[in-house]
Amino acid sequence: MSQVKKSTVEMTKQPTTHYSPAKYHFVWDNSLTPTLTIESGDTVVFDFEDGSDQQIHPGAGIEALLNYDWKRTYPLHGPIYINGAEPGDTLEIEVLDLRTKGWAWTAVLEGFGLLPDEFDEPYLRVFDISNGDYIPFREDIHIPIEPFLGIMGVAPSRKGELSLAPPDINGGNLDIRHLTRGTKLFLPIQVPGALFSAGDGHAVQGDGELCLTAAECPLYGSLRFTLHKNKTISSPQFITSPGSLTPRTEEKGFFATTGIGPDLMKCAQDAARSMIDHLEAEYGLSRYDAYLLCSLAVDLKISEIVDKPNYVVSAYLPLSIFK
Amino acid sequence: MSQVKKSTVEMTKQPTTHYSPAKYHFVWDNSLTPTLTIESGDTVVFDFEDGSDQQIHPGAGIEALLNYDWKRTYPLHGPIYINGAEPGDTLEIEVLDLRTKGWAWTAVLEGFGLLPDEFDEPYLRVFDISNGDYIPFREDIHIPIEPFLGIMGVAPSRKGELSLAPPDINGGNLDIRHLTRGTKLFLPIQVPGALFSAGDGHAVQGDGELCLTAAECPLYGSLRFTLHKNKTISSPQFITSPGSLTPRTEEKGFFATTGIGPDLMKCAQDAARSMIDHLEAEYGLSRYDAYLLCSLAVDLKISEIVDKPNYVVSAYLPLSIFK
Repeated sequence: MSQVKKSTVEMTKQPTTHYSPAKYHFVWDNSLTPTLTIESGDTVVFDFEDGSDQQIHPGAGIEALLNYDWKRTYPLHGPIYINGAEPGDTLEIEVLDLRTKGWAWTAVLEGFGLLPDEFDEPYLRVFDISNGDYIPFREDIHIPIEPFLGIMGVAPSRKGELSLAPPDINGGNLDIRHLTRGTKLFLPIQVPGALFSAGDGHAVQGDGELCLTAAECPLYGSLRFTLHKNKTISSPQFITSPGSLTPRTEEKGFFATTGIGPDLMKCAQDAARSMIDHLEAEYGLSRYDAYLLCSLAVDLKISEIVDKPNYVVSAYLPLSIFK
Repeated sequence: MSQVKKSTVEMTKQPTTHYSPAKYHFVWDNSLTPTLTIESGDTVVFDFEDGSDQQIHPGAGIEALLNYDWKRTYPLHGPIYINGAEPGDTLEIEVLDLRTKGWAWTAVLEGFGLLPDEFDEPYLRVFDISNGDYIPFREDIHIPIEPFLGIMGVAPSRKGELSLAPPDINGGNLDIRHLTRGTKLFLPIQVPGALFSAGDGHAVQGDGELCLTAAECPLYGSLRFTLHKNKTISSPQFITSPGSLTPRTEEKGFFATTGIGPDLMKCAQDAARSMIDHLEAEYGLSRYDAYLLCSLAVDLKISEIVDKPNYVVSAYLPLSIFK
């Protein structure tokens, strides 16, 4: 069949809705067998597990962290084979819908996060979010839910089993908080068929994901895929839905701390530490709860990156979460 | 006079509005003679020069950059002595009003900015903003004005003449774009009297200030000062005015690029480079104009800083600036 005929066939085909089977993978590996094969324009409905694969669940205690099996982290749906996709093309993923399913967790895991030396004890919070609207962080602290997928990616070009933890040009564990309902994500396709996978549901997260975990949760999701032939990008791009990036948390403005110096990582750590001090002093939160709250609700911005030798990273706390 | 009596005197005094004299300084130096002495609660009205001290002005051409005298950069009003201020106290500056005055400039200065090796030619744009509302970047590209002061600071504790270019814990060249009208900035006082200075008017800037310059401009400004005795902070903090941080640019959402890797500076450079590529390809901007546009309108966010070894910096472009 010639390329022209094939394109004609594709264009006249009605878009199909597929239901992603509950088969998971826990590594990037471009030799995995696809669980679905779809056409450009098709939609896929997903029922995502939380990022711990239910090792943490409603009622779980600290023992769930102590016995945590990292090999079960990030159960991903997929890979999904997109017909006609080739390296050098771009895959568009439109986030049609994402819904939480009643619970979420967040934790300090030893050795991880932005301040690993200062937070070296495991700590877990599991939240009842059956209200469907906000994380009841404390009676008087409500963090509005804005669900997104921590991981959306296409298979990397490198062969073999690769960790899901770091993001890369293929996307993956991007943890970009604004990939919410209505967003379009663009990923650079690395292998034939693209081999898209997703998971790591987040009920809400601040820019930075300071303590390593967002509000981790199972999610219902629906994604529409569009193949852009011969459109090449060098790393992920996205378009947010119209309007404010913080529609649910901006009403009362933001309190911000700063970190200033020649190293952006240390700037971010200093800004985070000042914010934790502030949350402890002003709202009576424990340092561990303050750290978790930063991960769920505080946004890191690079305020200036050119006034050598010192740069400014600011941490923004939305004031409307305090009732 | 006892401390208690002094406090009583201060509290019964009516707040005063002062007018800052047109006397400038071009270095941080805690031995400078104050131009004004005020009480906590007082307001000061300023008429700020642009950051080039009028070396660049309406009608200026590239020769203004070629002959640029760095020693005249950042003419600051002040220092202002706040009665009763001591090291360890905090100075609150409420931005009551800021207004542009008809023109602004932005430029690539050799050897500076986030991508100095790729933009090594001087380049200047001077904008007529007599419309009072937006930068007419191109006939079909309007960047709404959101004025703020690039520099607000108290004198550093270190003696001698120090450069105004890098910000530090005393504030200074913070270039935080959200310090607009209605914001409250908090600075840690380093020396008796605080010795507050300000300048470097910006008509608008994105988070990061990518090319080194914002829309540099003279500004009318009015600031109210409040002394917080015995409140100690380790670096600048601020509270934004209620509502969205991007009220004038969010209507159509944002297009974003990413930089992914182990070094946050390189991530920011990669995200910026992808954005410049995008602006060139999609909107037909020259690379130099794309770079300037990034500096004025694109925001750098740290999307995730914990998924070792790779972090994500995203560059957000507001789509509503395109008509």
